[in-house]
Amino acid sequence: MKYHAHYRFQTTGKMSFINVAENCHFPIQNLPYGVFSTAENPKRRIGVAIGDQILDLTEIQHVFDEKIGKAFCETSLKEFMELGPDSWHDARVQLQRLLSEHTSDLKDDALLRKRALHPQSSAVMHLPVTIGNYTDFYSSIHHARNCGIMIRGEDNALMPNWLHLPVGYHGRASSVIPSGHQIRRPNGQTKPQGSENPIFGPAKLLDFELEMGFFVGVPNKLGEPIRVKDAHRHIFGMVLLNDWSARDVQTWEYQPLGPFLSKSFASSISPWIVTMEALQPFMVDNPIQNPSVLPYLKHDDPYSFNIELEVHLKTEKMSAPTTLCKTNFKHMYWTQKQQLAHHTCNGCNVTAGDLMGSGTISGPEPGSYGSMLELSWRGTKPISLPSGETRKFLDDGDEVIMTGFCQGKGYRVGFGTCTGKILPAISY
Amino acid sequence: MKYHAHYRFQTTGKMSFINVAENCHFPIQNLPYGVFSTAENPKRRIGVAIGDQILDLTEIQHVFDEKIGKAFCETSLKEFMELGPDSWHDARVQLQRLLSEHTSDLKDDALLRKRALHPQSSAVMHLPVTIGNYTDFYSSIHHARNCGIMIRGEDNALMPNWLHLPVGYHGRASSVIPSGHQIRRPNGQTKPQGSENPIFGPAKLLDFELEMGFFVGVPNKLGEPIRVKDAHRHIFGMVLLNDWSARDVQTWEYQPLGPFLSKSFASSISPWIVTMEALQPFMVDNPIQNPSVLPYLKHDDPYSFNIELEVHLKTEKMSAPTTLCKTNFKHMYWTQKQQLAHHTCNGCNVTAGDLMGSGTISGPEPGSYGSMLELSWRGTKPISLPSGETRKFLDDGDEVIMTGFCQGKGYRVGFGTCTGKILPAISY
Repeated sequence: MKYHAHYRFQTTGKMSFINVAENCHFPIQNLPYGVFSTAENPKRRIGVAIGDQILDLTEIQHVFDEKIGKAFCETSLKEFMELGPDSWHDARVQLQRLLSEHTSDLKDDALLRKRALHPQSSAVMHLPVTIGNYTDFYSSIHHARNCGIMIRGEDNALMPNWLHLPVGYHGRASSVIPSGHQIRRPNGQTKPQGSENPIFGPAKLLDFELEMGFFVGVPNKLGEPIRVKDAHRHIFGMVLLNDWSARDVQTWEYQPLGPFLSKSFASSISPWIVTMEALQPFMVDNPIQNPSVLPYLKHDDPYSFNIELEVHLKTEKMSAPTTLCKTNFKHMYWTQKQQLAHHTCNGCNVTAGDLMGSGTISGPEPGSYGSMLELSWRGTKPISLPSGETRKFLDDGDEVIMTGFCQGKGYRVGFGTCTGKILPAISY
Repeated sequence: MKYHAHYRFQTTGKMSFINVAENCHFPIQNLPYGVFSTAENPKRRIGVAIGDQILDLTEIQHVFDEKIGKAFCETSLKEFMELGPDSWHDARVQLQRLLSEHTSDLKDDALLRKRALHPQSSAVMHLPVTIGNYTDFYSSIHHARNCGIMIRGEDNALMPNWLHLPVGYHGRASSVIPSGHQIRRPNGQTKPQGSENPIFGPAKLLDFELEMGFFVGVPNKLGEPIRVKDAHRHIFGMVLLNDWSARDVQTWEYQPLGPFLSKSFASSISPWIVTMEALQPFMVDNPIQNPSVLPYLKHDDPYSFNIELEVHLKTEKMSAPTTLCKTNFKHMYWTQKQQLAHHTCNGCNVTAGDLMGSGTISGPEPGSYGSMLELSWRGTKPISLPSGETRKFLDDGDEVIMTGFCQGKGYRVGFGTCTGKILPAISY
């Protein structure tokens, strides 16, 4: 076993023979996985982002051991995810070797390079895996507190359970879509203030939620919990996640069973899965949890990550996006190990390709809030844009662009972007 | 198009050459679909229940048109479900013809009969389809009112939204299992009354929920709602569903995002999907909805069904099960057409194999309540069993047996059983 309680700290000073700009998200230290197709070859295949290129793994599957090579010839990452952390590590080592400036196998084989490398600009990105189940947590204390203050006031901002368990709920898996897909404003039932009866029509309070998600790699069996000490071995990697939300639909529908149609119209993810191994150098101490958590949730090994996050908005009147907020994934109160241990403590089984959302990521300052709900404080503080416009929530034509990266010395391990533009509602 | 606003009323006076007892659930009028394997052939294949036999559709696929025959050679019902109501009808006509006492193709071909027919007792039943998404509604007014009275008192029993929309939430798809699988009592976090802090351990208030579920057949595209007038064309068939629940976990975890680990440890379904066409003769008038519902939920065609439902309990001390409750599916307040129209009104896409639960089905009388929570009225009225035992909730070793059928003249269209036995919790 190459992995024990922790992943091995693993980085590289090697440079790739492929040119990578200093602020590019995809240097040889990253090597995220995605599923792509091209105009010339519409078949979906697995690729790795390097610089502004995609390395087509079906073309170089011979460099990996047999089971990895086979998994890389599938049309989704499911089989590779199921192989587990030893195989994930082996694949990474081979990829770093192959892409190194000191290795000639690919660098000096013009024919292979032509077959195996495609500009990202020429590719269509798909979901990296069929998402069997999508769970969304609520693990940012700043976000939970902000929402609580708006609904219940300062004194009862956090629900009594919030500090004892990572609150979460089942989301809708079918409507998770890759970045770039346009978002149709949902119709829904709402009850306007002062109105006797509910109405039906386009949601008025359309919002984004800045989240990150992790993908489960290794499954567990039904009835056999994943213990918190082992949880990291099941986690494959992370993406950016925009959990689009219709706040007016949510307010009317969510009691007593939680959010439903207010969220299930679309959730966008960035197409490249950044592996946990690539994020290792950016680990930071876990948050202090007070009160102390129950033993089944306790772990001492660090599993928090310094990931800088930003949300940008581009309205139809703007020629360039403007920044709405900047925050950091390190603000999360509950770790992903705790989320997974909690999720399975009742015996619930997770499967390769399950997506686990963090919940909206807000920091302590107003400029670090991860939703319009918080940024405009429920619409009471309209946001002024450089175009002279204001926004409380999202208008038709608005494009939301999320991005995130870890800053290394002279390089970035990044997530690319997660974008979506709002289309008008269909008429009923 | 053979189908318009309604399914065609379709039954048959024909008898099958296969012997079917009068109280058997699987006469020629039913013909439910399932996925099975046998000891001699562990490959999963699609079968139809007839009497106490299973007709292996891979052996008779030549009698169907090409696309149906091809779909019947898959290892799950997904492809057949996607074909839509015209194909579902055509397949039923062919099956009824083939199984009729007046048709010799199968009846008089001893070799084919030997290959194609297997005793149900010799088969293992599997999930009929990979369940992509599982949604659970809350559509019994008697159940919702009972729960509301326990939590908020008689005057505020129903939440303000309840009469305006079919309340529902996303359930956990991965832990839906076929009837007969044993149920491991979940561990979980609870907060005992009077305790300062939560504790972790085996759930104490383990319950069943008597539900039925329907399977989506024909999918819609993301962003394109299914209108209520068309919703029946997307519904393939129904099963019994036991949505096992840990009430003490639920009480502590469910605010504000709804039930999560209190439900996700297991949900059992009966293995045979009874098609909507087989249920047609048992349609009854829809419930009167007052206040009137919004236009997007309004439909006049009947889509309520007279299905008699029973729950039986067998403890380890009992030699035979005892009846816990009797109720009827016709008590549902919201129709499945309304559930599907509501679910997709925001553009949410549904896919073939999505399971939609009804929510606990309770009738108006105490003997018709569909959960221990209601039958024992939150544990205040212990239930006396013929063995001399009492129950407030479920003990380890208890087996819950659900059954349901429609009573025709001299025949029954039934669902078989949905069973599960409680195993002790694992220790942490």
